[in-house]
Amino acid sequence: MTAVAAVKAALRSQAIETPSWAYGNSGTRFKVFAQPGVPRTPWEKLDDAARVHEHTGVAPTVALHIPWDRVEDLEGYAELSEYAQERGLRLGVINSNVFQDEDYKLGSVCHPDPAVRRKALGHLLECVDIMDATGSRDLKLWFSDGTNYPGQDDIRTRQDRLSEALHAVYERLGTDQRMLLEYKLFEPAFYATDVPDWGTAYAHCLKLGPQAKVVVDTGHHAPGTNIEFIVALLLREQKLGAFDFNSRFYADDDLMAGAADPFQLFRIMYEVVRGGGLTSEVAFMLDQCHNIEAKIPAIIRSVMNVQEATAKALLVDGDALHAAQSEGDVLAANAVLMDAYNTDVRPLLAQVREEMGLAPDPVAAYKASGWAEKIVAERVGGTQAGWGA
Amino acid sequence: MTAVAAVKAALRSQAIETPSWAYGNSGTRFKVFAQPGVPRTPWEKLDDAARVHEHTGVAPTVALHIPWDRVEDLEGYAELSEYAQERGLRLGVINSNVFQDEDYKLGSVCHPDPAVRRKALGHLLECVDIMDATGSRDLKLWFSDGTNYPGQDDIRTRQDRLSEALHAVYERLGTDQRMLLEYKLFEPAFYATDVPDWGTAYAHCLKLGPQAKVVVDTGHHAPGTNIEFIVALLLREQKLGAFDFNSRFYADDDLMAGAADPFQLFRIMYEVVRGGGLTSEVAFMLDQCHNIEAKIPAIIRSVMNVQEATAKALLVDGDALHAAQSEGDVLAANAVLMDAYNTDVRPLLAQVREEMGLAPDPVAAYKASGWAEKIVAERVGGTQAGWGA
Amino acid sequence: MTAVAAVKAALRSQAIETPSWAYGNSGTRFKVFAQPGVPRTPWEKLDDAARVHEHTGVAPTVALHIPWDRVEDLEGYAELSEYAQERGLRLGVINSNVFQDEDYKLGSVCHPDPAVRRKALGHLLECVDIMDATGSRDLKLWFSDGTNYPGQDDIRTRQDRLSEALHAVYERLGTDQRMLLEYKLFEPAFYATDVPDWGTAYAHCLKLGPQAKVVVDTGHHAPGTNIEFIVALLLREQKLGAFDFNSRFYADDDLMAGAADPFQLFRIMYEVVRGGGLTSEVAFMLDQCHNIEAKIPAIIRSVMNVQEATAKALLVDGDALHAAQSEGDVLAANAVLMDAYNTDVRPLLAQVREEMGLAPDPVAAYKASGWAEKIVAERVGGTQAGWGA
Amino acid sequence: MTAVAAVKAALRSQAIETPSWAYGNSGTRFKVFAQPGVPRTPWEKLDDAARVHEHTGVAPTVALHIPWDRVEDLEGYAELSEYAQERGLRLGVINSNVFQDEDYKLGSVCHPDPAVRRKALGHLLECVDIMDATGSRDLKLWFSDGTNYPGQDDIRTRQDRLSEALHAVYERLGTDQRMLLEYKLFEPAFYATDVPDWGTAYAHCLKLGPQAKVVVDTGHHAPGTNIEFIVALLLREQKLGAFDFNSRFYADDDLMAGAADPFQLFRIMYEVVRGGGLTSEVAFMLDQCHNIEAKIPAIIRSVMNVQEATAKALLVDGDALHAAQSEGDVLAANAVLMDAYNTDVRPLLAQVREEMGLAPDPVAAYKASGWAEKIVAERVGGTQAGWGA
Repeated sequence: MTAVAAVKAALRSQAIETPSWAYGNSGTRFKVFAQPGVPRTPWEKLDDAARVHEHTGVAPTVALHIPWDRVEDLEGYAELSEYAQERGLRLGVINSNVFQDEDYKLGSVCHPDPAVRRKALGHLLECVDIMDATGSRDLKLWFSDGTNYPGQDDIRTRQDRLSEALHAVYERLGTDQRMLLEYKLFEPAFYATDVPDWGTAYAHCLKLGPQAKVVVDTGHHAPGTNIEFIVALLLREQKLGAFDFNSRFYADDDLMAGAADPFQLFRIMYEVVRGGGLTSEVAFMLDQCHNIEAKIPAIIRSVMNVQEATAKALLVDGDALHAAQSEGDVLAANAVLMDAYNTDVRPLLAQVREEMGLAPDPVAAYKASGWAEKIVAERVGGTQAGWGA
Repeated sequence: MTAVAAVKAALRSQAIETPSWAYGNSGTRFKVFAQPGVPRTPWEKLDDAARVHEHTGVAPTVALHIPWDRVEDLEGYAELSEYAQERGLRLGVINSNVFQDEDYKLGSVCHPDPAVRRKALGHLLECVDIMDATGSRDLKLWFSDGTNYPGQDDIRTRQDRLSEALHAVYERLGTDQRMLLEYKLFEPAFYATDVPDWGTAYAHCLKLGPQAKVVVDTGHHAPGTNIEFIVALLLREQKLGAFDFNSRFYADDDLMAGAADPFQLFRIMYEVVRGGGLTSEVAFMLDQCHNIEAKIPAIIRSVMNVQEATAKALLVDGDALHAAQSEGDVLAANAVLMDAYNTDVRPLLAQVREEMGLAPDPVAAYKASGWAEKIVAERVGGTQAGWGA
Repeated sequence: MTAVAAVKAALRSQAIETPSWAYGNSGTRFKVFAQPGVPRTPWEKLDDAARVHEHTGVAPTVALHIPWDRVEDLEGYAELSEYAQERGLRLGVINSNVFQDEDYKLGSVCHPDPAVRRKALGHLLECVDIMDATGSRDLKLWFSDGTNYPGQDDIRTRQDRLSEALHAVYERLGTDQRMLLEYKLFEPAFYATDVPDWGTAYAHCLKLGPQAKVVVDTGHHAPGTNIEFIVALLLREQKLGAFDFNSRFYADDDLMAGAADPFQLFRIMYEVVRGGGLTSEVAFMLDQCHNIEAKIPAIIRSVMNVQEATAKALLVDGDALHAAQSEGDVLAANAVLMDAYNTDVRPLLAQVREEMGLAPDPVAAYKASGWAEKIVAERVGGTQAGWGA
Repeated sequence: MTAVAAVKAALRSQAIETPSWAYGNSGTRFKVFAQPGVPRTPWEKLDDAARVHEHTGVAPTVALHIPWDRVEDLEGYAELSEYAQERGLRLGVINSNVFQDEDYKLGSVCHPDPAVRRKALGHLLECVDIMDATGSRDLKLWFSDGTNYPGQDDIRTRQDRLSEALHAVYERLGTDQRMLLEYKLFEPAFYATDVPDWGTAYAHCLKLGPQAKVVVDTGHHAPGTNIEFIVALLLREQKLGAFDFNSRFYADDDLMAGAADPFQLFRIMYEVVRGGGLTSEVAFMLDQCHNIEAKIPAIIRSVMNVQEATAKALLVDGDALHAAQSEGDVLAANAVLMDAYNTDVRPLLAQVREEMGLAPDPVAAYKASGWAEKIVAERVGGTQAGWGA
């Protein structure tokens, strides 16, 4: 296989998971602006996700968020899974939600009250039941747990409570299932978050065992954090489980992946390629909020941005890079990386798409499909999906 | 008058304005946790604000937010004003809101569509009408206007639109009225905010005229920004109109003033004192969100925190400081400032309160008053106030 | 003229000034690593700068830094100017230095001691004398003035002192000369810098008059600051005088322009083009430290990076962008910008260079020239140039 | 023992190590301002350190930095140790330095060239020899290793090299010796630092074994990082080895401990107390640069600041705090912490000092001692100590 053929093969086999909630409404604490045509049910979300996969060819799975995607019972999840398969999709990661019940005002699994902790744990275990029903491999845990004021609760005791809950969930996992632990610097907790950084997530995962892995959400770091360094380290430690892709200029802005700093996304994907992470062992998920832009084309664009970053990463001339690095030639080594980054990979990706039987421009194809008009016309009445439970 | 007497006099005459919305529910984009007893109407908010003033003695005015505090008509605002006066309060700054209507998804006075700009301007002018009815001196303008993506709109054209609207509002002001322009680095806009920093607010205010002043919200800066420097500069330029006090560890966390960095609040108050800003020319307002803590005592605590910072600032030995500064004695000058900061001013403030006929500990007095239990019992049914219109 | 021809013409006429000090040694507080072949005199720096211009065609001027480039007397500067002209160069901006004398430990023009202030002012005025001798248009003022500890000196009084010095220098300027005032958040001052942000520089320049303009150094901002917004604003206010290009991941890292965030450099250049700033009214200067990489090729690479960002900015389809912005089509507007950014402009620039009679790849041409080997062989002995006075 | 007696006992037994290099000159990359009276030799540094201990009573050990404190041979270190003991001091942590030799331009133990790595490792092993001679327990490793440009070197391979060196040093340790691994976000590396955060240091220490511990330098984090959280976690993991105390507003400013954010220092010390870390297992060291202020009194002030933060932390009413936390009373819990913080502990510390036979005000006592004048008069000629090797 030639080098270009290998790059193309890698791009064809890439899988980028889209999140069911990105198809629904979202916003800031100031306002959620509604958009016409937004899905009202998990089924309609899957309908939209199928369009993204239809036009990109690389978005075959959809992440669910419980309870935002709750259906009647476990059988209902199995039916949802079938519904997805009929549309060429599979259900992906199950996302737990222990932050929107009134009980969780001061935390969930780290709450001072053991009754609240039990309730939260119950939800997490229910999510594993759902995984069994959907055939999902991964449970993603993000905890909004934390404190807003110094002294509000005991940082260390909260770690003990967290550890206890994580162990209980880990014990419940099937042998082919994984727990993905996500960290986040802040928001909604404004003083101390209980899993604020990769180190904390890593320390817990290490103790849990090989089925526990860390999730890197690209918007969850302090300013100036070198994310690709973390990626390289976690791959070296065999503890990188997944990405939540999005982009940000300030805090957790949840803009389209690659929109704010495309060079950073490229550097991240380079470390993924370098560390052998371009496999199914690492789940590549989007986790974004399309507050003001049209949702489906924004997701298509994000998928394309991840593809473009991946293509550039694959095009890095590894031999030339290694040679320049070994010689300590700073400028030459940097230039090898930049050569790949500065390449316009859009023609290559258009070619890959055509070889996959797709239109070369997914955004244009989506626009031409009439889907946007169709959902605006048909999805009238009911309650639009959003972050509310 | 002795030095201590002068300090006490300054503390007695201090006025800290509380915001009507802090008495209602608030939260993050993830969840608004409701609290029992929260007011359901502007009148009930004033009832609560009266308690804060009753116990602290230095919170005589309440800021309104339109439309969150909308009443039937202009006569209604006059009645609200009377209602306040009957409770020992006055209505303070009128806050406009051009960020929660569906029309404002892409901005208000900077929106690309002139019809939306006209609508937003209409609201701002309506707020001046309300000021006439309430007798308020100040109109506070905060614009959520901005863009989320590079290229989304033209940064410079938006400045032209902003300028046009500001001039139109300025023209409408009465001779005793002022326009306070607030800046904010980001949120809800995630790429470019149209008034992101003090420089932008200052440049506009300079062109508008002497009735236009800048508002410093302590949570609206980039990490590392030296806020007291900005305060010193704006006072030197006679362009400091008001403070929105709150505190933050990360972004615009809106925690209680003084909770996250009491030393910073002290440094800010020192520059206020130094620059002659401890007068009615500068409005000292709280602008906070009590997402998880009880609201009224949190506001009382915040008022006390501002008082304590002010007391410490007033206690700085100006002569000793000036002498050390003039000699270039870095450590001695710093030590003079720190001596004041390290002083426990709570006994002094307790004394000031007792001399004003108040209980020495406002939080304890509030707890003992039974108000918290009363509002939980009485405010049943109806819709709790919050950020929704 | 076709669109492409216009772009090429703009690229051909671009002028990027290189700083004399970037040819010398530099480092961090931990260590200055010396490089073989580094110039020992201002003349040798010009020899190196001539190589950069020879290979890029767009670096015709060199900024001097006094006293790092001090020569014997004013006649000496005139001779240096001639020397430059003989090599196809001109002397550019004169940079003052009031931060390396032992007297300046607590500041220069803001120092508490009037004797130190007079000394500093004397140096600034001397720099105008040098400008007269070199024919330089611009005096660049960067002050390291500030304080390390709260209370160390009076923030406001320091502004008064600053203002006094700036006025004295402004008065001394010839009618065709300009004063460029640079701001910087921090370093070497660690608490309050006397000109920390664009607002402060702008406020002073406004009072000085039309010959005073603001310098934007791309490394001198708080994390998260939107630099292109500042550029757009200063152009709108006709107060943008110059750029100091470099790049950073953390603080004032002074890496090669475009190396850390090429997308940001593109956005900045887009606002320059949009605001009509691609003229000689704005000086485009590099201000970098090549601590570990070879200096001349690093400067060539930086010039090329600025060219590439400029080319992409010029390629933005203004009509399409305006149309999408007017319709509020967020994704389409962003896509227009990204289309230009994602274009590989290296072939276009290679063509421009060939049309200018240059080699298409300046780095390769420099390598092939043998200059690097020549200076290593010839520049033996003496004291290498660096930041020391 | 009463509560106050226990607090006093804890304060009396506290030990804060001062760094030999803080007595010498330091500065920024722009300038090192020399101060009169600065030591010229390790012996003179110990003379100064003895003054700090004499006046504070809690600074009995001094950290050495090799080669800045290099003496002739191992016997010389033993003599230095005796010299210290004669002055009531002991030699403390040995700090290695693999960042100031020309060979280390691209790194030390992570350098691409194995010869440089061997040289660096040799120095680290030499430092253990010195520990044997001085009787020091701890070896502190800070690596400036990293890269300035993306692609410059391979992030992951550098981790492998780092790991190899750490293991080699660990093997060499005596059974009573420890390795302290320090992390730092950036500077002097400006793209990727090889040990940038606590997670990286922790991961390495975990693999090395129980004698490897993490050092928390309070100035080495990204903006917004919650340092006390890290402290709580490392104590929970039994991996907190030491502190490098200093303070900062922006980057690694190295200001006096407690000068920039005294509330943060208090929160850190609270977690230390809470986590049982106020023992000799955690080394409390200063690591500061007194660039513009007098050095000895600045160090005394820093020691006092750490003492004051410790005193406040010890005064937190643990029972009340625990009760409020358990009930989820956010305001009450925060108030318990703030009560301790707002206490003026200077009288208590004055009392502790008097009970130890010391003057109540160490700064005043130092000033009165005449030492400052003495060293200015006597230390004439020679080369002042500084960061140079």
